[in-house]
Amino acid sequence: MTGRFISFEGGDGSGKTTQIRKLAERIRQAGGDVVVTREPGGTDLGLKIRQALLHGEDLSPRTEALLYSADRAHHMATVVRPALERSATVITDRFMDSSIAYQGGARGLGIDTITKLNRWAVEDLVPDMTILLDLDPVIGAQRVGAKKDRLESAGDAFHAEVRQTFLDLAAKEPDRFVVVDASRTPEEISADIGTAYDRLR
Amino acid sequence: MTGRFISFEGGDGSGKTTQIRKLAERIRQAGGDVVVTREPGGTDLGLKIRQALLHGEDLSPRTEALLYSADRAHHMATVVRPALERSATVITDRFMDSSIAYQGGARGLGIDTITKLNRWAVEDLVPDMTILLDLDPVIGAQRVGAKKDRLESAGDAFHAEVRQTFLDLAAKEPDRFVVVDASRTPEEISADIGTAYDRLR
Repeated sequence: MTGRFISFEGGDGSGKTTQIRKLAERIRQAGGDVVVTREPGGTDLGLKIRQALLHGEDLSPRTEALLYSADRAHHMATVVRPALERSATVITDRFMDSSIAYQGGARGLGIDTITKLNRWAVEDLVPDMTILLDLDPVIGAQRVGAKKDRLESAGDAFHAEVRQTFLDLAAKEPDRFVVVDASRTPEEISADIGTAYDRLR
Repeated sequence: MTGRFISFEGGDGSGKTTQIRKLAERIRQAGGDVVVTREPGGTDLGLKIRQALLHGEDLSPRTEALLYSADRAHHMATVVRPALERSATVITDRFMDSSIAYQGGARGLGIDTITKLNRWAVEDLVPDMTILLDLDPVIGAQRVGAKKDRLESAGDAFHAEVRQTFLDLAAKEPDRFVVVDASRTPEEISADIGTAYDRLR
């Protein structure tokens, strides 16, 4: 049996890093083998791509979408699949739904187009569970404070569209998505995630 | 009126660099504005991608295809389209047909899949003329000598498949492709290319 594949999605400042750490600790304490990774940047190639995407020159939406999917294809082939094959649980900070929400929705490239592109990139390996940390992007931006990279500084309408696309994706796939209200305390949020994880096993 | 867009395709050692230089000189001597560029690597981002593709770690075929298309999308948006819009002639050393032949044909990802991916990446901007420098890959490899990068060292069957896919693409689009026998002298080859270029204008 292969391991479980869990993705965390949500806007910047929604608390993904904290919640991933908490879930990974919970699984490790129960004796589980956990790999925590992220996109973009979960591989050596990914780090270079992440640098180009977030801190480099201006990129067209299609270039951006293709770079994210290249990073994802490599991450999948070299990190995620090998870990799942040895039955580890893989938790990734962002996965294809981020591309669908940011490039497909907010940048206007189309939900279907970006979904197809990414499903091809990962050879149809979709997460067993996706935790969507849902948060008003205005609150997320306040939490992130001054540390803005290129995507984080893209504007309020953009981030509202990202949030709405995430919620639409969750509504279309209720068996995969768990939508968690991320405006609450970290303890409340992690309790919800723990419950969802227990149901998954 | 926008400028002419010309791509050169062919295996390594087929003489693309020499022939591109000759054609560019010819156009410049006639007072034309020419931009000579290449893929991968015609932009700053492209140089980083080229490095990752040709001299980095092992990449899956899909990762490779997505990186080439990301490079192409960026090259198109920042170099090729702006030059064509000011009516320059753009000559590129490799373009989408290389991805179709190498990733779609020789790496087995499928001609149609890689064609669609790349047409999306460049928003359907296809060259006005594609010069295919056709050469037995064994002769091409001898010409290239010891300087082998990752792709150049991929093996004889691979390169035979690349050549055949290029020829198949040319047969499907005879109005765009000009197939030139690259086993002859540089002068004979450039005479053929000059004739084709004159017809294009």
